[in-house]
Amino acid sequence: MKLIRFGQAGKEKPGVQLENGKRIDITAFGQDYNEDFFGNDGIKRLREWLLQNEEKCPEISNEVRLGSPLVRPSKLICVGLNYAKHAEESGMDIPKEPVLFFKATSAIVGPNDDLIIPKNSKKTDWEVELAFVIGKKASYVSEEEAMNHIAGYVLHNDYSEREFQIERSGQWVKGKSCDTFAPLGPFIATKEEIKNPNNLNLWLKLNGEIKQNSNTSDFVFNIPILVSYISQFMTLLPGDVISTGTPFGVGMGLKPQRYLQPGDVVELGIEGLGVSKQVAKAYQKE
Amino acid sequence: MKLIRFGQAGKEKPGVQLENGKRIDITAFGQDYNEDFFGNDGIKRLREWLLQNEEKCPEISNEVRLGSPLVRPSKLICVGLNYAKHAEESGMDIPKEPVLFFKATSAIVGPNDDLIIPKNSKKTDWEVELAFVIGKKASYVSEEEAMNHIAGYVLHNDYSEREFQIERSGQWVKGKSCDTFAPLGPFIATKEEIKNPNNLNLWLKLNGEIKQNSNTSDFVFNIPILVSYISQFMTLLPGDVISTGTPFGVGMGLKPQRYLQPGDVVELGIEGLGVSKQVAKAYQKE
Repeated sequence: MKLIRFGQAGKEKPGVQLENGKRIDITAFGQDYNEDFFGNDGIKRLREWLLQNEEKCPEISNEVRLGSPLVRPSKLICVGLNYAKHAEESGMDIPKEPVLFFKATSAIVGPNDDLIIPKNSKKTDWEVELAFVIGKKASYVSEEEAMNHIAGYVLHNDYSEREFQIERSGQWVKGKSCDTFAPLGPFIATKEEIKNPNNLNLWLKLNGEIKQNSNTSDFVFNIPILVSYISQFMTLLPGDVISTGTPFGVGMGLKPQRYLQPGDVVELGIEGLGVSKQVAKAYQKE
Repeated sequence: MKLIRFGQAGKEKPGVQLENGKRIDITAFGQDYNEDFFGNDGIKRLREWLLQNEEKCPEISNEVRLGSPLVRPSKLICVGLNYAKHAEESGMDIPKEPVLFFKATSAIVGPNDDLIIPKNSKKTDWEVELAFVIGKKASYVSEEEAMNHIAGYVLHNDYSEREFQIERSGQWVKGKSCDTFAPLGPFIATKEEIKNPNNLNLWLKLNGEIKQNSNTSDFVFNIPILVSYISQFMTLLPGDVISTGTPFGVGMGLKPQRYLQPGDVVELGIEGLGVSKQVAKAYQKE
């Protein structure tokens, strides 16, 4: 099943994208895609509800804006340097254990919303990433149990301001948390749709030219390892989003380096998880 | 005004601690202390409501557990090394600009809840800190405007596992986010209660012996600077909590170093913001 949210930013409603590509409004189901939904068998309940109610759900026009396919989670956790070749282009060693950082959840936007280049930014960069959504509270979980804690998968562009991240006194969070820096979607593919998340092609184009093109089989740490590892340090809550790191081909790694400018068009995709597209704009006071 | 929340963990209700120390249940006000409350003049509305309704509010027994005095925020942002003498004891330089990191909001607990020493932890440490709560969305705010974005102040113990934080591959978040690592409270003092937040005594005792004893006048970066600075990198939402760093006297800085063991009692306080107390316990599977 493919979960979507649609409508005006901040007022999104839940929907489902059907096998035939048609999108339907499931507001009548009575629950949005939030912690309570993921934590209380929402996917199963929705699937059963649709058996009876799918025909009655209003169809959504393809013109309508898509929002993030889940309500703001408690955490958006990212894994750094999780593809060997990207660690190399960043001038960093392959880590001995997963490197973790948080993005502010206020950075989350819809998959095709504009990327706003922050005020005073010179080094806004792209990062296509496979993210997954927690379906069941996870604390001190083993690798064997890990997959039972996953609800589904989603495409993420982990936008990063490299000067803010690396050159502005310790800790990466400053360069990862700007508004619009976390487009999620177009949809969450529930777990059964993705046979092997550790073997998916993913790519990113800048102005039509391919920049990143890799496969999640190149992960340094695969998904069960990540779930188990992170759960040793904090409790993962239903709806929490974990982004698994980006492969080779970011702007910082190019010679010369290439950072985003107003008007640039970024398109990205992952096998089975659809495509998203952001147009870069300069920051303007609201 | 002093905002409290009370009752069973996860089912807290909002209350107010009156000038005479009496605590009342304000459930009838109809709103908990969440993003919507802080962002839509909740403090002002509550104050007006109390003029008519205070007498009718049920009194709360002093035996009842206090929870965190606000609903889980979107962010819990901490400032590192914000007192010169603490930077020195940590073996780090005084930063040129504020060092920021996030704690997982799942670490938030009530002011007097037990501290759970994480599984495999050898270096769980204390950090008394002044935290403040955002009252109005803040993006690219100037230092002059900064104080208009603050709702109030709260006592915070920024528990930190030093091995997880420093010795486990990059980024501090791993050592800052364990469950129970962020006791908040006993109450939020609304802004008008604290005349000068940049001049408050704060202290922490371990088993009755004073370990930290300082004043926020020793801040490297004061509160208006922090609000303005952070708002250049991310949007602060109403209810977000920002913790301003800890002074000299943490366990890591002692010779020999001293880390928490089951049975240790940690008490801490800030002038005008009350006192909290945590008893350290070993992790036990639920």
